[in-house]
Amino acid sequence: MPSHEHMVAAVHAYVDAFAKEDSEAIARLYAADAIVEDPVGAVPHRGIDAIRDFYAMSIATRAKLTLSGPVRTAGDIAAFAFSVHVTLEGSPYRIDVIDTFSFDASGKIAEMRAFWGPLNVHQL
Amino acid sequence: MPSHEHMVAAVHAYVDAFAKEDSEAIARLYAADAIVEDPVGAVPHRGIDAIRDFYAMSIATRAKLTLSGPVRTAGDIAAFAFSVHVTLEGSPYRIDVIDTFSFDASGKIAEMRAFWGPLNVHQL
Repeated sequence: MPSHEHMVAAVHAYVDAFAKEDSEAIARLYAADAIVEDPVGAVPHRGIDAIRDFYAMSIATRAKLTLSGPVRTAGDIAAFAFSVHVTLEGSPYRIDVIDTFSFDASGKIAEMRAFWGPLNVHQL
Repeated sequence: MPSHEHMVAAVHAYVDAFAKEDSEAIARLYAADAIVEDPVGAVPHRGIDAIRDFYAMSIATRAKLTLSGPVRTAGDIAAFAFSVHVTLEGSPYRIDVIDTFSFDASGKIAEMRAFWGPLNVHQL
């Protein structure tokens, strides 16, 4: 089981990778057969290649993440609240999101789920 | 599918019920066959009677909840970050938690999962 500290460090590495616009750094956090469901209810991205593509597109929007409070960990899952700031078609937006990362025994993210919906998207 | 507004109202009713020390009001938010996993990884409380007992014990600690930021909703799930302030054996603590509520078609909570662990418990 990954430690609390490992999981918290992975969350911070994830946020930092957005700041540095480094989708490869994000992909390295994931297991080869990982699943990303963003938002929850959407068709998941399955496998590291699909996940890398997904994050390359996200990074291309220059989205920046700001954590809201401490990372929570329960067993092998981390949960964290954050805001995304992104400019879309010239207009700035804030999107409020909570993610969960489920880690495998090697400490890679096996599953990511992103909880947000249309009413969490705010034009600034 | 419950609306965003319904799910947000349920979260606020949940927080308010802790403020009013009203475990019955919490139980009314849940479906008869609901499951509460608090924290994630613990043996779940199954069914409304077990859930009512669990919250009666929680309320007896006089725990108070403070939301940290907006409720996120994705499909029929609400996710929200909060802090619990509670006094245990004479010492005040803050516990940082993220909960998810999954709603059934009638708008009741079918499943609650609470993400927190020992390193989210802070003596004040």
